[in-house]
Amino acid sequence: MFSKVLKTYTGRANGFYRNLSQKLPEFTKNVFDVSRGNYNYINDGHIDYFRRVLGTNRVITNPEDAEKYNVDWFSQDSILFICLGVLVCQAGCILETIDNKAATKDLIVPLDLGAKGSCQIGGNVSTNAGGLRLLRFGNLHGNILGLEVVKADGEILDCLGTLKKDNTGYHLKHLFIGSEGTLGFVTKVSIQCPSRPKYINVAFLGLQNFNKALKTLKLLRYRLGEILSAIEMIDYCSMDFIKNVVGQQSPIGDYPFYLLIETSGSNALHNEEKLNSFLEESLQKALVLNGTVANEPNKVQDIWSIRENIPNGFQKVASKMLYYDVSVPLAHYYTIVDDVADYAKDISERVFGFGHIGDGNLHLHIQLKNDLTKEVKSNFDSFILEKIVRYKGSISAEHGVGFTKAKLMDKIKPPSTLKVMKDLKKLMDPNGILNPYKIFI
Amino acid sequence: MFSKVLKTYTGRANGFYRNLSQKLPEFTKNVFDVSRGNYNYINDGHIDYFRRVLGTNRVITNPEDAEKYNVDWFSQDSILFICLGVLVCQAGCILETIDNKAATKDLIVPLDLGAKGSCQIGGNVSTNAGGLRLLRFGNLHGNILGLEVVKADGEILDCLGTLKKDNTGYHLKHLFIGSEGTLGFVTKVSIQCPSRPKYINVAFLGLQNFNKALKTLKLLRYRLGEILSAIEMIDYCSMDFIKNVVGQQSPIGDYPFYLLIETSGSNALHNEEKLNSFLEESLQKALVLNGTVANEPNKVQDIWSIRENIPNGFQKVASKMLYYDVSVPLAHYYTIVDDVADYAKDISERVFGFGHIGDGNLHLHIQLKNDLTKEVKSNFDSFILEKIVRYKGSISAEHGVGFTKAKLMDKIKPPSTLKVMKDLKKLMDPNGILNPYKIFI
Repeated sequence: MFSKVLKTYTGRANGFYRNLSQKLPEFTKNVFDVSRGNYNYINDGHIDYFRRVLGTNRVITNPEDAEKYNVDWFSQDSILFICLGVLVCQAGCILETIDNKAATKDLIVPLDLGAKGSCQIGGNVSTNAGGLRLLRFGNLHGNILGLEVVKADGEILDCLGTLKKDNTGYHLKHLFIGSEGTLGFVTKVSIQCPSRPKYINVAFLGLQNFNKALKTLKLLRYRLGEILSAIEMIDYCSMDFIKNVVGQQSPIGDYPFYLLIETSGSNALHNEEKLNSFLEESLQKALVLNGTVANEPNKVQDIWSIRENIPNGFQKVASKMLYYDVSVPLAHYYTIVDDVADYAKDISERVFGFGHIGDGNLHLHIQLKNDLTKEVKSNFDSFILEKIVRYKGSISAEHGVGFTKAKLMDKIKPPSTLKVMKDLKKLMDPNGILNPYKIFI
Repeated sequence: MFSKVLKTYTGRANGFYRNLSQKLPEFTKNVFDVSRGNYNYINDGHIDYFRRVLGTNRVITNPEDAEKYNVDWFSQDSILFICLGVLVCQAGCILETIDNKAATKDLIVPLDLGAKGSCQIGGNVSTNAGGLRLLRFGNLHGNILGLEVVKADGEILDCLGTLKKDNTGYHLKHLFIGSEGTLGFVTKVSIQCPSRPKYINVAFLGLQNFNKALKTLKLLRYRLGEILSAIEMIDYCSMDFIKNVVGQQSPIGDYPFYLLIETSGSNALHNEEKLNSFLEESLQKALVLNGTVANEPNKVQDIWSIRENIPNGFQKVASKMLYYDVSVPLAHYYTIVDDVADYAKDISERVFGFGHIGDGNLHLHIQLKNDLTKEVKSNFDSFILEKIVRYKGSISAEHGVGFTKAKLMDKIKPPSTLKVMKDLKKLMDPNGILNPYKIFI
């Protein structure tokens, strides 16, 4: 069955890769200290076999020609169809492209990431991408209606349903959502698209302390319920960094904490009335000290740019930065930032806490005084792991396990859970050829 | 490891079963023509083993005492905790009980079924129950945050997370959502609970034909978007049945089709304004011929009772009824009702089409002139299967495969899909002891 896959893809060699002129990324083996697993090497026998199966002119043996096929950012990017709320496309489609297509039908792809201009829906599915509007639309397990997947044995698994409800047998598609390509290779995606909200409002609020942020969160859910589409938290340190490193001022002055609220809905006046009534109540209850609102697209974008400029700014101090993407139950959401700030006080310049607080997802980053070393990273890894385990959080909210966190799996999962995961891996990929070295050591 | 499970449950023998006075249901083997699989019988050796492991007084051997343990409606019904939107409970909790608990915190359990007063959350999860408000809150794959499951080997699988985002390894909980208890036995459930909508409005609309219903659906999504919580379709035949058999009149007179719309949101005035503006536009465009609205709880319930009285009424003609719960892409949603009505014209009294049109879920029922026979059922099964396959629908939208549809699995699933399902079953339950005879023959 292996030939099926090769045929499908080699037949698309023209235009198969995006940006071939772009510099190819480094191999994992060159970036990390990794020793090769128990895998075979390609020999003349294999090459003869493929020539027999595929034909001589469809097998590349020149190492230079083969080079670009070592990278996994392939591009199969047709949108197959879109109707009444369901969009079906190939896995290589860029997220922004399919969202633009959905917009032409007054629909929205229920996933939005900073990387939407370059990330592909197949990768989004394989990594169970979260992003900015999970709060409103829910996660991909709830929104993906179907998948086509190529298994490790080359067999094509057709679960490309387009129905919202189908209770016939096991819901296999979920095996491939978030398993980082280690159980199968997603080739087509069917996703439900809700009505595109017509009117967007944002508010940027200054708060006195984190406890008030938690209370504000509760009020937001109560008052804005169905029109809430994002709640982002930014701490003082993150804002101070934007001011001093990126050169962008807070539109409302300095506060210990900030919340960026987005609402979206089908009636402009209703959205504004709800938001204003929430703001009045939050000011009256002294939950919020100050705030600004916007509904014009340019001004909405200005406010969002504050949040987006935090990760953008890190590029200026990249060699000194340490990044963690964690989930923490709200009661301890900011405790862990204080813990890390205290732990790092002698060697850090700043400790940043910001992120999708509406989903309990915290981006916890550290800017060191000096360049990062392996030893410092290892110490922080252990410290944060210990805290996350204590607070019953997750060491990876949305970025996955990949290669670097694989060694932590036996510290965060009970043996019975890990055994089922490894049994599944063995069942679906007995030779370990799908995205090797990822998730498990 | 088997002892673990027995210990857990035998320790709760008091109050373990609900309604012991209630008549026990018939065994599957007595209702259907089923021959016993290749399973062992309990012998003295097994009984000695359990006595050694559990102690003599914890093993029941009197057949009369053991009788009630042959039924699977056990009840472990503690709500373990509820906080900031997450509710954790034991699997035996009644859906309505946990929703009432959620209501005390201004939250809602994002699942609502006609059977909510008796169904248990563990069963809801195992059958991936859909229900009335899937349209608003999405399905259980999106809403279940974690599960505790007992595996076939007695090992307890702790995936009882409470985080909205956790991308560490395979998302195992999804294996057990909708697999009808054949891969593991759900014992605890963690579910996210959104803000409870404070104001409910309903509208009951009369329409000229199904095409107008489809256009109305599109307008509903566009105009009401974020406050839509249910869209139910009722056809003329279903309403005629309620009038003549149940004795309830349509509040707006006779029309070929009806839509029952529910909206819910955080601001009463906004909900009404949106609904009224939709109604004006739909009347103006002649999509809707007539309609009535309600917001007082009693009147809301009166309108919902029309929809609920359809299945209630079937009890009066049960021996003549045939039931199908299917999903059909909207373009063919009502075509299949016409197909069946035509096929059945000589032997049927009525062919009913109603259901959760907002999710593409159709309840397609047939009232025969005479009592149902095996032969007639078999003919209808074949006819409907053929139509569902042609229209790319599903023979089970929300009711699952169970025993009676297991024989159809090889007709609706490609061999490669069925093989992965069977491989999973073998991996998780090598001796076939979990809910035997279900899903697969």
